Amino acid sequence: MRQIQALIDGVADMVSVNLREHDFAVDEHVQNCVPLEKLAKFYAFYGLSPHYPLHFYFHQSVLAGSYFVGMCTVERSILYKSDIRGDELRVKGGKMGAGGRVLALQDDEKIHIKNSFLVKTLVHSNSHDPENPELFHIYNTVAMHFSNIHGSSVRGVFLGPFATLDQTTAHDCVLGPYAYVNAKEIRHASVPAGHIQVKSPERYEFHYQYPAEVLARYIQYVPGKVPRGIFMVLSDRFKQGFQEAFKFVPLGKGAGAPTGSFVSPYAAVDAESSIGENVLVAQRAYLSKARMGGGSNAQESCFIIDSELEGRNITAHGANVIHAKLGQKVFVGFNSFLNGSNGNPIVVGKNSIVVPHTIIDAKEPIVIPPEHIVWGFIERQSDIPRQSAPIEELRKISGEARIGDMTFTGDGGAFVAEFADRIEHILEANGAYFDGASGNRGHAQKGQDIAYNIIQPFPKGAFRGLCPTLDIRAPQ
Amino acid sequence: MRQIQALIDGVADMVSVNLREHDFAVDEHVQNCVPLEKLAKFYAFYGLSPHYPLHFYFHQSVLAGSYFVGMCTVERSILYKSDIRGDELRVKGGKMGAGGRVLALQDDEKIHIKNSFLVKTLVHSNSHDPENPELFHIYNTVAMHFSNIHGSSVRGVFLGPFATLDQTTAHDCVLGPYAYVNAKEIRHASVPAGHIQVKSPERYEFHYQYPAEVLARYIQYVPGKVPRGIFMVLSDRFKQGFQEAFKFVPLGKGAGAPTGSFVSPYAAVDAESSIGENVLVAQRAYLSKARMGGGSNAQESCFIIDSELEGRNITAHGANVIHAKLGQKVFVGFNSFLNGSNGNPIVVGKNSIVVPHTIIDAKEPIVIPPEHIVWGFIERQSDIPRQSAPIEELRKISGEARIGDMTFTGDGGAFVAEFADRIEHILEANGAYFDGASGNRGHAQKGQDIAYNIIQPFPKGAFRGLCPTLDIRAPQ
Repeated sequence: MRQIQALIDGVADMVSVNLREHDFAVDEHVQNCVPLEKLAKFYAFYGLSPHYPLHFYFHQSVLAGSYFVGMCTVERSILYKSDIRGDELRVKGGKMGAGGRVLALQDDEKIHIKNSFLVKTLVHSNSHDPENPELFHIYNTVAMHFSNIHGSSVRGVFLGPFATLDQTTAHDCVLGPYAYVNAKEIRHASVPAGHIQVKSPERYEFHYQYPAEVLARYIQYVPGKVPRGIFMVLSDRFKQGFQEAFKFVPLGKGAGAPTGSFVSPYAAVDAESSIGENVLVAQRAYLSKARMGGGSNAQESCFIIDSELEGRNITAHGANVIHAKLGQKVFVGFNSFLNGSNGNPIVVGKNSIVVPHTIIDAKEPIVIPPEHIVWGFIERQSDIPRQSAPIEELRKISGEARIGDMTFTGDGGAFVAEFADRIEHILEANGAYFDGASGNRGHAQKGQDIAYNIIQPFPKGAFRGLCPTLDIRAPQ
Repeated sequence: MRQIQALIDGVADMVSVNLREHDFAVDEHVQNCVPLEKLAKFYAFYGLSPHYPLHFYFHQSVLAGSYFVGMCTVERSILYKSDIRGDELRVKGGKMGAGGRVLALQDDEKIHIKNSFLVKTLVHSNSHDPENPELFHIYNTVAMHFSNIHGSSVRGVFLGPFATLDQTTAHDCVLGPYAYVNAKEIRHASVPAGHIQVKSPERYEFHYQYPAEVLARYIQYVPGKVPRGIFMVLSDRFKQGFQEAFKFVPLGKGAGAPTGSFVSPYAAVDAESSIGENVLVAQRAYLSKARMGGGSNAQESCFIIDSELEGRNITAHGANVIHAKLGQKVFVGFNSFLNGSNGNPIVVGKNSIVVPHTIIDAKEPIVIPPEHIVWGFIERQSDIPRQSAPIEELRKISGEARIGDMTFTGDGGAFVAEFADRIEHILEANGAYFDGASGNRGHAQKGQDIAYNIIQPFPKGAFRGLCPTLDIRAPQ
């Protein structure tokens, strides 16, 4: 156990040195964050797939409850319940555009995690850093409960609970709780709690700031303590479902699902849920009385409860959908919280976009019209005009605009087009458009071919809790 | 699947080249020996233990259903349901006596398996080859169903079904079905089916040859076909118990057992069995209505059914004990077959030794007196005088002796003393004498600290059925 403690101390030192200009020491955040006993006993696992180049290297790390399917190195790090993946890494010869140039990858891209402590963090997709197209690195970084590092190379970053860094290279930054940043690149920045920004340099900026009193109800965080608030209450309520799923190691394919669909054996899906064709239900997705229309996906750590999803719906990492009815192609972004109830359901019309980190906590029945984009904090139908806009209207913005507390600057058309592109990319990558031909297979189809291999840590002795040093390659 | 086929072809070539002087081609033996489909889908596992130096390296191999806890390299080989272990390998600085000299090991001993096809073979304990004290090698070797390679370095060896090579270095040898060889070293030898030999050069020789008509009832073997006969019927009857055990990967410690005892989660033990203190029930041991007295062990692939074992009993690898009552410290050797029934039970008195590869198939109640050594084929009480001797009498032999069809030459005292030493060593190594102090912990106690990690083969694609190339070390 001394080894794990030494590992945590080492990460705390490295990250704090990176964040010295913010005068931000992470020690209090990481010490006692997860009981050592818990870190020591969790088993980890990696996926073996014929679809991706294979090379894993794990050294001096705790890999509690993971899942990797692509090229990944982890050194001197603690991954608590991470996902990582690697199934969208670029391959040798692949192209990446940036600064008017097109770079061809010299090697297969790989993930490299070093000196980091990622409490429940996803590191899905690929590096969006054109300066390191072959290396998706996560160095000297601490990410707290239910934060998401998604397609973001980081060095010296602290993410508070429920914060998301999305397709953004970040160096020496601090993100407060429930902050959302999608900004291509940030350096030496401190992003306040509950600040939502989507930014494309020289094209547009979208900002929204949660009021402090609202935030306090959903997420309260004191360093060294487990976060509190409505988000955590909800998460605790459903986690039992996963504990059951993780008691056994799946040896065959995932649970029965229709053609083209994959339900991870590490998801929790009850018998009253239904799964359409070409549906992906990812690891740690929790579905209860959920109707998943064809081509939908339920991503990692999302909850979908008492809800109907028409089809081709995206429920992103950490998003919650409760007592809601979502039309075709509704997108619900990271860590969004759609909390309806039997008497106060939420209806979202087709093609609407729920911006990441949106809270719709219905005190009365709420209807979001089709083709709308919605953000921020909504409790009543009367909040809608201040917290949403028809996509068509947003598209027309050029210059500055303010809707409620949201400010937008720049080219609305570019903003809408980039969002639409991303939604199409996500559906395609997840296999929503699979027609039986191998050309358009996505995660929902390829996931069926993954074999899960487990890694238990040393059960006793000097290395207790650490995984062995593992180097795993293809046989040739 | 082409990869597995190529692997089998490669092994067949290497072994056949080794055995060319015997004009013995192994192709027919290994082709179709196990359906490729079966080899491709089995998961393997290795144990992680704080008690032994750790280094595994697996390359271009099928590791179906294994279990390793020590230093082991496997290359271009097929291990079907192997055990391997490595928990008795010598460590750096350890001593090995031979030819009047004492060698000090320069490195930790490791197992190295290369170009071999080991159908259900154990490679337990350590190299007994003083010429290679740090390397326990298994090269260019084929071992068929329920054969045992035990503490025997081999190069270019074929073992027929139910054959055992015990603590004997062998080069370029063929062992027929149910042959047993414990002879320190054999080279370029062909050992006939059902030939039992225990030999210590210049000290003694013990020989017994099963009559062909007896052998034919118990084990019939035609190359390229699954063996037949009573041994296989019995094995098939009980194997269902293991299939259940192997459906799940054990994540915690083994099943509940008293202080100092270990029941492998990969053993099958029914509720009507009872386990005493300091008992080891190894992987693939099958116990039904078995009373295991304190300090007993049930080793790999043994069956103990409707039987009472008084205490400190050894039931060696592949031994069967059915409707028997065994007194204190009775030793039942490899692949022995004690087949009593309700009406015709078998009683073996305390301190008696059942020589490896003994068949007692009771057609009437049978009693072996205490302090006896018994061998060969026994059906009735009247067979006993021709198939056994009081240990005290055997001890007195000097020169040549013949009892029934058994011939003994040399120093009976040395033979008895070596057997007694070995029994003590086995009891000690397995933890029979554990008294709560750490100094005398054996496998029954240390086994409790093993974490099992699984390796699934590639489920699809070019490498289907092969395990990834794995290099596994301690974190430092």
